[in-house]
Amino acid sequence: MTYNHLLKDIKIYEAGKPIELVVREYGIEPSNIIKLASNENPYGSSPKVIQELKKSVTSVSLYPDDSMYELKEALAKKYNLKSTNVIIGAGSDQVIEFAIKSRCSEGSNILIAGITFAMYEIYAAQVGANVIKTKDIFHNLTQFQEIYKNNNIDMIFLCIPNNPLGEALDKNEVFEFLDTIDSSTMVVVDGAYQEYAKYKDNKKEIKPSELLAKYSNTLYLGTFSKAYGLGGMRVGYGFGSKEMIDTLHKLRPPFNITTLSLISAIIALSDEKFIQESIEKNYKQMKRYENYCNEVGLEFISSYTNFITIRFNNNYNSKKIALDLLKKGVIVRDLSSYGLNAIRVTIGSKNQNDKFFNEFKRVGFNK
Amino acid sequence: MTYNHLLKDIKIYEAGKPIELVVREYGIEPSNIIKLASNENPYGSSPKVIQELKKSVTSVSLYPDDSMYELKEALAKKYNLKSTNVIIGAGSDQVIEFAIKSRCSEGSNILIAGITFAMYEIYAAQVGANVIKTKDIFHNLTQFQEIYKNNNIDMIFLCIPNNPLGEALDKNEVFEFLDTIDSSTMVVVDGAYQEYAKYKDNKKEIKPSELLAKYSNTLYLGTFSKAYGLGGMRVGYGFGSKEMIDTLHKLRPPFNITTLSLISAIIALSDEKFIQESIEKNYKQMKRYENYCNEVGLEFISSYTNFITIRFNNNYNSKKIALDLLKKGVIVRDLSSYGLNAIRVTIGSKNQNDKFFNEFKRVGFNK
Repeated sequence: MTYNHLLKDIKIYEAGKPIELVVREYGIEPSNIIKLASNENPYGSSPKVIQELKKSVTSVSLYPDDSMYELKEALAKKYNLKSTNVIIGAGSDQVIEFAIKSRCSEGSNILIAGITFAMYEIYAAQVGANVIKTKDIFHNLTQFQEIYKNNNIDMIFLCIPNNPLGEALDKNEVFEFLDTIDSSTMVVVDGAYQEYAKYKDNKKEIKPSELLAKYSNTLYLGTFSKAYGLGGMRVGYGFGSKEMIDTLHKLRPPFNITTLSLISAIIALSDEKFIQESIEKNYKQMKRYENYCNEVGLEFISSYTNFITIRFNNNYNSKKIALDLLKKGVIVRDLSSYGLNAIRVTIGSKNQNDKFFNEFKRVGFNK
Repeated sequence: MTYNHLLKDIKIYEAGKPIELVVREYGIEPSNIIKLASNENPYGSSPKVIQELKKSVTSVSLYPDDSMYELKEALAKKYNLKSTNVIIGAGSDQVIEFAIKSRCSEGSNILIAGITFAMYEIYAAQVGANVIKTKDIFHNLTQFQEIYKNNNIDMIFLCIPNNPLGEALDKNEVFEFLDTIDSSTMVVVDGAYQEYAKYKDNKKEIKPSELLAKYSNTLYLGTFSKAYGLGGMRVGYGFGSKEMIDTLHKLRPPFNITTLSLISAIIALSDEKFIQESIEKNYKQMKRYENYCNEVGLEFISSYTNFITIRFNNNYNSKKIALDLLKKGVIVRDLSSYGLNAIRVTIGSKNQNDKFFNEFKRVGFNK
């Protein structure tokens, strides 16, 4: 059988290893495994979500309200938009997919940072779009602009803060950059970790309503998978002009999130206190990583997220370190597939981080 | 902004109206609304699923095991296949999407029955494939063969039993038809309602292992949304050759089903008793619809599913009937968008069907 020729070169996204796999492969008890690989909220999700879910589990047989009326209204209200500016995806991943497929086709050009979220490239490959990366691994807007001038760019992704590195552009830099971009170029501002960034430094905050009011060619992405503690429920969203959102809806499959996901997201959005406390604890625990790295002379990237990226010199091999940790029940993300000799570690809870440091020291990073 | 030209003509899938919408639009109490529009299992889902979900709700913050190891193993075991023959989708819908996007591109030809599941056409439009339909609204394999001979067909969909009509091809007819189809044509056997069909008549049963062993060009689809009672959880699957499944995996986004969906599906699969009892009650209740239609002289299509399609003569208008029922809190599916003066009614529980008949009589179908 002949398949679509575009599929030949597609590489499959390498997900953070699940606890189940470590149980299967290394025979470690689930209670002895900590997962610091996928930037989930280590404090779980809002107790209000859990309480509501317990009451709602009998509704699993019924399809969700496919209009997602209530969730869209709640998001629109919170972000000072109209619900016609909102699309819901199975994670913001799916909105990335809609965006690329709506704007690009074979031969389109997509501009991204040297190292950034892997899914941009994977969805680009599905439609045969070219991906052009800056030489700088971080978001270097001077380099973005140079490439933009010299190429016919259909779409740009700005990941703010950037996953898997953790750096974040300032809002002002972003807006100045957007002033120079043609309105026919779609610019996606991926704000999956914005809750963390704006807490640490309000210069990083990108208000969707302000962004959309100034730049009709932008699509803002947010997610319930990180600070909101619903990684397992697959809910994200996109904000854009009505015209853009109407177009993206043509690519949205019916019932693209589950009945329980819809309920969870609505409740999660209403418990701002839980989010703020999670973020506060995140930065308190992150200090331990920064201090440790400074003590032992390890290079880390200053992070505006709930993870920290630790880079190694040539005496060490991040792949081996990640594997050694895995065998001890500590799952972190090796970044060698991104071309970096580095690991990305989700900032866990106090106990999780205790275990991380214990095992990290045992695999060779003693003070 | 310019968007992908293929999106211009895409029509959006018209989902069965949710209870929430009827509450909003007609101010009817949720407890007075019955939804017989989306072929969910009216008996809910297995009590074992509910019990397990209550224990598992705290896991919503963690991404699922993206390898879906346990669910694939369970499906492979049940259907006498290998787990490399299995792909999991967010509903079998998503596997339809993977299949079309893997096999077709602009200008490809897809052959389907005159009236069948709407999503085949919607995904075809997304890649710019042409859809050729038989003149007969039912699966008429003579007509399928004629069109196949005279056109360059890349892909065929057989929906067995057929949604939204309810008729089902015999296994023997299907296999004889497949004998005449070139191995370069992908044939999708959509078995979303197979559990119902094989219970009513074992000549309808299509065993995936037998299908795949004989025809390497086939993809079998199944779902947890109907008999398994997990419509709200979005889990379906595809069975095919290892080569085909490997190719479809290139289009699967990571974490395409939720953590709770994965848990639900694994448990649901183990409770065969619940499924069989649901199906038994389904046909007992379906008799009431058949008897009523016979009494009042309404035409219905003999159904191998958990719904029944009732056709009206020119004195009646299905759109109006569906709307009148909606205003009484009874949600059914008007089929006028399929070009039929008919409604599709999910066979509900005894109480739901009591209410259906009460209201149906009041809107003008007195004996």
